[in-house]
Amino acid sequence: MAKVLTSRSENYSQWYNDLVIKADLAENSAVRGCMVIKPYGYAIWEKIQAVLDGKFKETGHQNAYFPLLIPKSFLSKEADHVEGFAKECAVVTHYRLMNDPNGKGVVVDPEARLEEELIIRPTSETIIWNTYKNWIQSYRDLPILVNQWANVMRWEMRTRLFLRTAEFLWQEGHTAHATEKEALAETEQMINVYGDFAEGWMAVPVLKGRKTESERFAGALDTYCIEALMQDGKALQAGTSHFLGQNFAKAFDVKFANKEGKEDYVWATSWGVSTRLMGALVMAHSDDHGLVLPPKLAPIQVVIVPIYRKEEELAKLTEVIAPIVAKLKAKGISVKFDDSDNRKPGWKFAEYELKGVPVRLAMGARDLENGTVELARRDILTKETVAVDGVEDLIENLLEEIQNSIFQKALDFRTEKTTKVDSYDEFKELLETKTGFFLAHWDGTVETEEKIKNETKATIRCIPFDNELEEGVCMVTGKPSKQRVVFAKSY
Amino acid sequence: MAKVLTSRSENYSQWYNDLVIKADLAENSAVRGCMVIKPYGYAIWEKIQAVLDGKFKETGHQNAYFPLLIPKSFLSKEADHVEGFAKECAVVTHYRLMNDPNGKGVVVDPEARLEEELIIRPTSETIIWNTYKNWIQSYRDLPILVNQWANVMRWEMRTRLFLRTAEFLWQEGHTAHATEKEALAETEQMINVYGDFAEGWMAVPVLKGRKTESERFAGALDTYCIEALMQDGKALQAGTSHFLGQNFAKAFDVKFANKEGKEDYVWATSWGVSTRLMGALVMAHSDDHGLVLPPKLAPIQVVIVPIYRKEEELAKLTEVIAPIVAKLKAKGISVKFDDSDNRKPGWKFAEYELKGVPVRLAMGARDLENGTVELARRDILTKETVAVDGVEDLIENLLEEIQNSIFQKALDFRTEKTTKVDSYDEFKELLETKTGFFLAHWDGTVETEEKIKNETKATIRCIPFDNELEEGVCMVTGKPSKQRVVFAKSY
Repeated sequence: MAKVLTSRSENYSQWYNDLVIKADLAENSAVRGCMVIKPYGYAIWEKIQAVLDGKFKETGHQNAYFPLLIPKSFLSKEADHVEGFAKECAVVTHYRLMNDPNGKGVVVDPEARLEEELIIRPTSETIIWNTYKNWIQSYRDLPILVNQWANVMRWEMRTRLFLRTAEFLWQEGHTAHATEKEALAETEQMINVYGDFAEGWMAVPVLKGRKTESERFAGALDTYCIEALMQDGKALQAGTSHFLGQNFAKAFDVKFANKEGKEDYVWATSWGVSTRLMGALVMAHSDDHGLVLPPKLAPIQVVIVPIYRKEEELAKLTEVIAPIVAKLKAKGISVKFDDSDNRKPGWKFAEYELKGVPVRLAMGARDLENGTVELARRDILTKETVAVDGVEDLIENLLEEIQNSIFQKALDFRTEKTTKVDSYDEFKELLETKTGFFLAHWDGTVETEEKIKNETKATIRCIPFDNELEEGVCMVTGKPSKQRVVFAKSY
Repeated sequence: MAKVLTSRSENYSQWYNDLVIKADLAENSAVRGCMVIKPYGYAIWEKIQAVLDGKFKETGHQNAYFPLLIPKSFLSKEADHVEGFAKECAVVTHYRLMNDPNGKGVVVDPEARLEEELIIRPTSETIIWNTYKNWIQSYRDLPILVNQWANVMRWEMRTRLFLRTAEFLWQEGHTAHATEKEALAETEQMINVYGDFAEGWMAVPVLKGRKTESERFAGALDTYCIEALMQDGKALQAGTSHFLGQNFAKAFDVKFANKEGKEDYVWATSWGVSTRLMGALVMAHSDDHGLVLPPKLAPIQVVIVPIYRKEEELAKLTEVIAPIVAKLKAKGISVKFDDSDNRKPGWKFAEYELKGVPVRLAMGARDLENGTVELARRDILTKETVAVDGVEDLIENLLEEIQNSIFQKALDFRTEKTTKVDSYDEFKELLETKTGFFLAHWDGTVETEEKIKNETKATIRCIPFDNELEEGVCMVTGKPSKQRVVFAKSY
C-alpha cells in the first residue's frame, strides 16, 4: 500500500492539508480562500451542528436569520468594531452585469452602482442590533435569545482549509438582556456549552478563560474562550463568547423601559463557533494513517467488510452480517456494510482507516466456520477476533471506550506539553525547542504582552477561569502578579 | 379585540404582508429586498428543512457546501444561464474598506480591487460543475448525488416577504449521471419528492408538470415544476427540478470514461425549493384571524392556557394540566403551557390564533370541578368542552384530522377554481372577473404563448404530467392540440 499522507513528523502542516483533502473533508475552490466542504466533511459538520443546536435550544435559544449584506455605514457605528473588521470586508458595489461591449463575456454594468456599498457580513452584530432596535421597547421584550447558522466572509490573506478561510460557516448567538448580571451569566453559560461540547463530543480537552484586552473581540468588553492544544503543540482558539456590555445598544440606540419605567440601554452578548472546529477535530486526534474520529461525531461508526471470492460466498456472509447490521442500527449505531465488488478488501481497509471510521469488522470464510469476526479499532490500530454472538453489545461499549480513550490521550498529551516557567530567559530558550502551553506570570499590561509577542511569537491564549491564585512576579518586568496566564504559539 | 389584520377581501396583498409581520414570521431589513426571518418563522422553516432533508437522504443524497462567491467569467460559460442571471447579480468588486480621508466613517479602499469581480451566487450550477470536473473521471465516480442548503442572491426590483426577496434561503440539489435516462429519472424523482412534501406536509395540493420552453430554467433542457393555487386564485410555483442535459458538463468540460472506456459528457440535474414555500404555506390556508398551520409543520401544535385570578388557582390548574402536557409530549406532540402572568387569557387566545397554533386548550375553575377542558380548533374556529380523561388521544387524532381537513379544503378550493375553457374570447372575458387555473388547448408555440401573456397577463403554468390526452384546437390559432395546458396569473 502506497503511503497516501505526508507524516506528521516530516511536515505537520503538509500532513494536515493532505489529510483534509485525501479524507474527502474539503478542498480549495476556484475562488481564492473559499473552500468546498465535501460530503464526508459536511456529514461531520452536520453532526456538530445537530449537537450544538440541541444544546442552544435546551438553554432557551431560538434560531433566526438575518441578511447576508450589511450597509457599510453600520460598521462605523461601533468604533472598535470597524477597526477590527473594515480591512477584511468583501464589498458589493454593483447589482448587475451586462454583456461586454467588446463581446467578451460579461462586465459590471456601470449604471447599476449601489447608492451605498454593502459588505458581506464578517459577523452580524451591527445588522442584528439595528434590527433589535425595533424589537425592544420594554423589559417585557427581554431577554432575546437568538442564534443563527450562517456563512460569513473575512478576506484573509493567508488561508488554510477549515482553520482560516475567507468564507466559513458558523453559528452566531446574539442575545439582549435587561441587566449586566444576566448578560454576564449568558456569556459564561455559552462558553461552558462550548467547553462541554469540545470535551464531551469532540474529545478535545480545552482550557476555558478570558482573553486579554488586546485579544478581545472588536467591540466586546470581555471575551471568554476555549483553547485547545494541537498535536504540533500549537494552540487553537475553538470558540468564543463575548460580553458586549452596552456598546452595540449605544451604537444602534437600543433602549428599553425597565420595571420601574426608567430607560436604559440593553446589555448584549454574542458567541460563536465555526467550521474551524473541523480543523481542531482533525488536528487533535488524527495520525499518519488518516483521520481518527471520536465515535460521537463519526458519520460512520462501524464499517463491515466481507472477504470473499465468489458471489455465493458473499451471500453466505451476508446471512450472518445482515443481523449484525440490524442489531447495531437498533442501538442507534451508524453502520455501513460495504459489499461493493469494485474494490478489494485491502483497498477498503485503507480507505476506512483514512476516513477515521472508529470500528471495522471484517469477515471471511474461516470466520464464518468459527462464528467469529475480526474487529479492528481505528484509534489504537489493534485487531482481535471475537465471537459474532453478542458483538453488538461489545461494539456499543467499545465505542464509548474509544470516545473516552481519545479524550484521555489528548488530555495526557496536553498535560505533558504544559510547562510552568518563571524566567523570561528560560521561556525564550524553551520556545526554541519546545511547544505547548506555558504557564507564566505576567504584569497585566498590553506593553509586556506586546513585547513577548514580538520577541517570541507566543501570545497569551487566555487567563484561565479555574486558575489557582499564586503570588508571583511578571517574568519580563518583575512586577507583581497574582496568577499565571497561558502562553502559546497559536493558529 | 382590535382587528390586527386587513381582511383578505379588502386587500389580499396587504393581508398577506400584515400577517407575515404580525405573526412574527419575517420583516424587511435595512438592506433593500433582504428580509429578517424571525424566530417563529424560522422554526417553521426548520421543520420544512428537517422533513425535506430526510427525504433527500432517503433517496441517496448527501449534503455538501460550495462557495458563496462565483467568478464572473464562470457565468458566461453557459449561454442561456448568463442570459438568465446576469441582470440580477450582486457584484463584489473590492475586498477592503478604509477610513474615509474626510473623516466620515469608512469608504471602499480603491487599492483593494479584485482582479476579477465575483458575483454572489444566484444559483450554483457554475461553481459546482467547475468543482465536479475534478471529482469525475470514470463511471465509477458517478452518480454524484449532492445537495446544499444555502443562501442565494437575486437582485429583484420588486420584492415581497418570502415570495420574492433579493436574498433567500433554499436547497439546491446538483446531480451528475452517466446516462441521460438516469438523469431524467432523477429529475422526475425529485419533483415527486417536492410534490409529496407539498401535499403531505404543507397540505397544499399541487399540479405537477413541465414548463414550456420559455419558462424553463436558464440552461435547462427541461424544467419540471409543482404549481399551487393561492386563495386569491393566483398560481405560485413552489418547486422546480431541472434536466440539464449535458449543457453544464460541456460548459465546464466534465467528461467521464464509461464502462466501455469511451469518453462522454456527464448528464446533470438540479432542483430546488426555497423560503418561498413559507409564502405558499401562509397564503394557502390562513384566514382573516391569522395563520392556519398544518399540524405537521406547526412549531407549537397545542397551546394550553390556564384561566385563573389567584396564584393558588393556578397551582390547582397546573396539577391537572402538567400530566396532560407530559402525555402529549410522550406522543411526540409539541405543546406549550402558557402560564405567564403578564398577559390576560383573551390576549393569549388572539395571539395563538394569529400564530396558527392548531389546537388550543383552556381550563378554568369550572372545568377543574367538572374534569373538563375547553378545546378549540384553529382551522375551523370551533370550540367544545371535553373530558380531561383521554384528551391526549383525542388530540392526537384531531391533529391528523386537521392536517387532512386543511388539505381537503385547499383541494376543494382548487377544484372550484379550475375552469375548462375552449375559446380565447371566453378566456379573456373570464379573466376579467375570475381567477384560478384555466385548462385550455394551446398550439405549442412560443408566439402564441407570448401573445396570450401580453394580452391577458396569464401564463402557462405547466403542461401537467397526468394529463388526459384530448384532441382539440388551440384557443388562439385553431391549430391542432393533443392536451390542455394550465393557464393562470401567477406570483
